[in-house]
Amino acid sequence: MKASQFFVSTLKEAPADAEVVSHKLMLRAGLIRKLGAGIYNYMPMGLRVIRKVEAIVREEMNRAGAVECAMPVVQPAELWEETGRFEAMGPELLRIQDRHGRQFVIQPTSEEVVTDIARQELRSYKQLPRNFYQIQTKFRDERRPRFGLMRGREFIMKDAYSFDRDREGAQKSYQAMAQAYRRIFDRFGLRYRAVAADSGAIGGDLSEEFQVIAATGEDAIVYCPTSDYAANMEKAESAPPARPRPAATQPMALTPTPGKATCADVAELLGVPLSTTVKSLVLATDPIGEDGTPAGAQLWLLLLRGDHDMNEVKVSKVPGLDQGFRFATQAEIEAHFGCQPGYLGPLRLRKPVRIVADREVAVMADWICGANQPDHHLTGVNWGRDLPEPDLVADLRNVVAGDPSPDGKGVLAIERGIEVGHVFYLGTKYSRAMDATFLNEDGKPAHFEMGCYGIGVSRLPAAAIEQNHDERGIIWPDAIAPFTVVLCPIGMDRSEAVRAAAEKLHGELLDARVDAILDDRGERPGAMFADWELIGVPHRVVLSERGLKEGQVEYQHRRDTAATKVPLEQVFSYVKERLAA
Amino acid sequence: MKASQFFVSTLKEAPADAEVVSHKLMLRAGLIRKLGAGIYNYMPMGLRVIRKVEAIVREEMNRAGAVECAMPVVQPAELWEETGRFEAMGPELLRIQDRHGRQFVIQPTSEEVVTDIARQELRSYKQLPRNFYQIQTKFRDERRPRFGLMRGREFIMKDAYSFDRDREGAQKSYQAMAQAYRRIFDRFGLRYRAVAADSGAIGGDLSEEFQVIAATGEDAIVYCPTSDYAANMEKAESAPPARPRPAATQPMALTPTPGKATCADVAELLGVPLSTTVKSLVLATDPIGEDGTPAGAQLWLLLLRGDHDMNEVKVSKVPGLDQGFRFATQAEIEAHFGCQPGYLGPLRLRKPVRIVADREVAVMADWICGANQPDHHLTGVNWGRDLPEPDLVADLRNVVAGDPSPDGKGVLAIERGIEVGHVFYLGTKYSRAMDATFLNEDGKPAHFEMGCYGIGVSRLPAAAIEQNHDERGIIWPDAIAPFTVVLCPIGMDRSEAVRAAAEKLHGELLDARVDAILDDRGERPGAMFADWELIGVPHRVVLSERGLKEGQVEYQHRRDTAATKVPLEQVFSYVKERLAA
Repeated sequence: MKASQFFVSTLKEAPADAEVVSHKLMLRAGLIRKLGAGIYNYMPMGLRVIRKVEAIVREEMNRAGAVECAMPVVQPAELWEETGRFEAMGPELLRIQDRHGRQFVIQPTSEEVVTDIARQELRSYKQLPRNFYQIQTKFRDERRPRFGLMRGREFIMKDAYSFDRDREGAQKSYQAMAQAYRRIFDRFGLRYRAVAADSGAIGGDLSEEFQVIAATGEDAIVYCPTSDYAANMEKAESAPPARPRPAATQPMALTPTPGKATCADVAELLGVPLSTTVKSLVLATDPIGEDGTPAGAQLWLLLLRGDHDMNEVKVSKVPGLDQGFRFATQAEIEAHFGCQPGYLGPLRLRKPVRIVADREVAVMADWICGANQPDHHLTGVNWGRDLPEPDLVADLRNVVAGDPSPDGKGVLAIERGIEVGHVFYLGTKYSRAMDATFLNEDGKPAHFEMGCYGIGVSRLPAAAIEQNHDERGIIWPDAIAPFTVVLCPIGMDRSEAVRAAAEKLHGELLDARVDAILDDRGERPGAMFADWELIGVPHRVVLSERGLKEGQVEYQHRRDTAATKVPLEQVFSYVKERLAA
Repeated sequence: MKASQFFVSTLKEAPADAEVVSHKLMLRAGLIRKLGAGIYNYMPMGLRVIRKVEAIVREEMNRAGAVECAMPVVQPAELWEETGRFEAMGPELLRIQDRHGRQFVIQPTSEEVVTDIARQELRSYKQLPRNFYQIQTKFRDERRPRFGLMRGREFIMKDAYSFDRDREGAQKSYQAMAQAYRRIFDRFGLRYRAVAADSGAIGGDLSEEFQVIAATGEDAIVYCPTSDYAANMEKAESAPPARPRPAATQPMALTPTPGKATCADVAELLGVPLSTTVKSLVLATDPIGEDGTPAGAQLWLLLLRGDHDMNEVKVSKVPGLDQGFRFATQAEIEAHFGCQPGYLGPLRLRKPVRIVADREVAVMADWICGANQPDHHLTGVNWGRDLPEPDLVADLRNVVAGDPSPDGKGVLAIERGIEVGHVFYLGTKYSRAMDATFLNEDGKPAHFEMGCYGIGVSRLPAAAIEQNHDERGIIWPDAIAPFTVVLCPIGMDRSEAVRAAAEKLHGELLDARVDAILDDRGERPGAMFADWELIGVPHRVVLSERGLKEGQVEYQHRRDTAATKVPLEQVFSYVKERLAA
C-alpha cells in the first residue's frame, strides 16, 4: 500500500471530550471519528486494525471447531419476550417499531436468535456438540457512553454459542473455548490475564474474563504471582483468617470523636491503625408479606474492617440478602439508630438489627466503632464481652493486596485490567426459557446445555492502546498494527535513488506478505515521522539519499530510542528477522 | 474443511412462503433461515458465499483506489434532516429513539454520513479525488419484503462515494468505478449487462445499472445485439419514427363496440391489427395557484398506440408534467369526458384537454380510438382532417423488441435482469444540502462533486441462483461457490483405501488453496450426492473402493450429465485444470 492511495488523517490535538488516552490517540491517529454519543465511524486506518483482530479471532474460532454464521442486527421482539429479556434488559436494549408497528430490537447479543436456530436446526444428539459464532455489529444504549470505543453504544463483538447434550459436554465445549481464547489473546501480542469471574445464578466455576492489563483499566484484577490463581475483584475470595480471635486487653470506653465521621479520621485522631476500626454499613431489604404487599423495610448492619471495602457480589450471596438488597436511606437510618451515619455501630442499639460481620471483623479484639451517638465512638470493643456474637459471619469484602491467596500458594497482588473477552457456561437458562430441545439417545426431548463466549472486537484496539503507548502515540503489537512496517523515504520526489530503493524494498515486503506502507505523500521528514509514531506502526525504515550513498538505511522499532543503520542489501532480511522476533 | 466440522443442513421441501426459485433453493440448501419478514440469518453455508462476494468486491475496489471504512448502522437523525431525507424517505427509513428520546435511523445507505466525513476530513483540493467505501449492514423497511434476499429488509450492501473537485474529476471517478464494476462482475462469473439508467434530476448520462441476466428478473433490459447499446426499460429511448405520416384513406366513422373497453378487444372485434388502435390515458396535475393554494386539477390526455405501454419516466419529463403527475380518478374522468374509461378519445370532447401524443401516434393515419361515448369507438381517424394536431408530441412509451436501436446500429431486443449494482453521478446534490466544501486552488470554498456506487452483496447470491440452477438445485460459478470442490468418499468409514485417498486429495487441494470440502458425514451416496447438487458445489470427485481398485475416481462438474473416470494419480491436476477453465 502506498500512503497516497490510502487515507492518513492525523490531528495535532484530540477533541476536548476525549478523556482517556486510547480515545485521544484513536482520534488523533485518525482511526475513528465520532458520529454521535458512543457512535463512531471506523476510518480506513482503524478499520485495518479491526479487520486484523477479526481475522485472528476467526482463524482460532474455526480451528476450535466453531462455525461462523451471521444473525440479523434487527431482531423481532417476540424472541426476546420468550426469555423475558425484552423487559428485563431495560433501557439498554434499543427497541424499534417497524412501519407496521411491530416491535424489534437491535441486537446487543444474540442468545435468543441462536437458540431459535438451534431449536429448528439441531434435532438430534447426533448433531451435537455444535458451536455457532458471528462477528457482528451490536448496540447497547449505554446511559453514559464514554471513552471512545471502550464504552461505545454501537460496537463489534464476536459472540459464540455452544450447544451440548449434557453438562459434561458443555464443560468440554467451555474448556475448548477457554483454550481458543488463550491462543487468540496470545496472538494479539498483548499482556492479559484470564481471571475467574462470578457466574451469577448459574453457579459453578465456569466463567472467566479475559482482561488486558492496563494501569488505566476499569476493572481490578486479583492474582497470585506465585500460583495460577486469578480472579476479578467481584469474584476473588478472601482466605479465612488464619489466626483465632485474640483475648480482650482493653476496657470498652465511650470516646468523644467530634466531627470525625469516617474510620480514617477516627484512626488518625486516636493515633491507631485503620485496621483496628470497624465500619458499619446499613442495608435494607424489602420483604413481601404473606398477603403479597410489602411488609416494611428490614434493616441489616454490615460490619467491615475500616480498611476494607464491601464486595456487592459477595453480599448478594448472604442468606437473607440474596433476593436483592439496597442501601438504607438516611431517614431509615436515623429512625432506626437515632443517630446520623458516621457514628453508627452494633452496640447501644435502640431497636434490634440483624448484624452480619465480615470474617475479619469476627476475629478482631479491642476494636473501635461508632457509638450510635453523635460525635462519639466506642473503643476497646470486644465480641462476647461487650456485645453478643454477630448473627452471621461471612466473606463480605474485596480482597486487598497482601491477602493470602485462597489457594494457599502465596499472597495476592492486584492490577488493573480491561475486559475484552468472557467465556460463560449458561446451562439450560435459555434453552428452557425458549423450550429448545433435541432428541437424546433415548429418543426423548432434552434441553440444550449452552455456553456463550464473547470478544469485544472493537474494544480490543482501545485496550491495546491503553497498554501500549507513549507520549508520541500508539505502539501496536505487530499482529494488529494497521500496517506492520512503514517505509519513510526522504526526498523521494527529488531523488531517483531514494525512490527506486524504497519501491524495491516495498515490493519485496509485499511479495513476502508483509503489510508494509510506503509513505509517498511528500511530507517533510519531521511531520512524516510524527504521523507514523502517532499511528504506532511498529517497524520503520528510513531511506535517504545521504544514507544510500553509504549503502545504508535506518531501521527503528517504535520502542527503540535510536535508529540502527542497516546495509541496504540486508534490510529486507533484517526487517523480516525483527518481525519474527 | 471437513463436512463433519462444518454445518450442512438441507431441506427436502422449501417453506410454502418461498415464491421464487432462488429463495426456495437458498432455504433448501441451508444458506439462509428466516428470522422475520425480510430478515434472515446467514447460515454458515450462505455466509461463505457472502464472504466470497465481499472479497472480490473489496479487492477490486481497493485496486480502483477506493479506501474502505465502516460507517455506523445506527445514525443520528440530524444529518438526515440536513438533506431532507429524514422526511422524504418515508416509512422505508427505519427510525429509532434512544433512551434520551433522540432520533436515529438505521442506515439504508450512507450519503449523509460520508458527506459529513468529507466536510470534516477533506479540506483541500489536494486531498481529492477521494473514494470511501464500506461493506455494511443496511435496512430498508420495505412495505412488502419478499423473495428472500432478493427484496429483504436487512441486507448487506457495498456502498462507495467519490469526492472530486469538479465535474470532470467526478466523471473520471465515475468511469473508474464503472470499470471496476465490470471487473467485479466478470469475476463473479455471471452473465450480466451494464445498462444506461435514468439519472433523474441530476441529468447527464452518468447512471448505469449492473443487471444479472435471468428470465425471472424483475427488470426489463433493452439492448441491441449488434451494437453496444443497452439501457433499462425506464431509460431506453425509442428511435423517432423513420417514416412520415401516410395520407388518409378512410372516412372517420362512429362504430359500435359494445362491451369492448380495451384496444385488444376492439382490434379483435374489428379484425384489425392492434397497432392501428390508439389508447387514451388521462393524467392529472395539481397546479398551485398564485395565492399558494391548489388551483384545481388539470387533466391531460396521453395517446399511445394500442400495442405500446406508457413509460412513466419519459412522461415525467414532458413539459407541464415534469413537476409531478398522477392518474386521473374515475370521477374526474367522468366529469370531464362524460364517459367511462374504455371509450375515451381525443375527439368529440365536451371540455378542452391538453393532448400529448406519442411520436408513433403522431405519424399514424386511419386510426381507431374511443368515441367519448359508451360502447362506441371512432375508426378511420386522421390528424389534421378530423382533429387538430396534438398539443405536444413526445416519446412516451416503452420500447418493444424489434424497435430500431437509438444508435441506428440494429434493432432492439429485450431480456430480463436483476439489478445488483448501480453507479451514479450525484453532482453537488448532497454537498450543497450539507454545505460540504473544500478549498480549491484559489483558496475559495467549493462544493464537492460526488458520485455513489452500490453493489447488493447479499442480493447477488440470489441473482446468481436465478441465473444458474436446475431441477436438482443451485449451480454456483466457481468464484462465489460456498466450496469449489466437494470430495465424496463412498464407505469411508469401512474402507481405509477410500479414507486415505480422500484425505490425501483433500490435503493436496487445500495446500493448493483450493476451497475443497471432504464429506465425511457418513451419509449414503444418494443422499450425499443430492445434498451437494442442491447446494451447488461446481466440482465433485467421488472416491469408491471399486473405483480405487482400478486406480480411478470419478469427476463430475455440476453441469455435466455424466461423470468422467480419472486415474487417481491424475485427479489433482485434472481438477486444477477444470478450475482454471
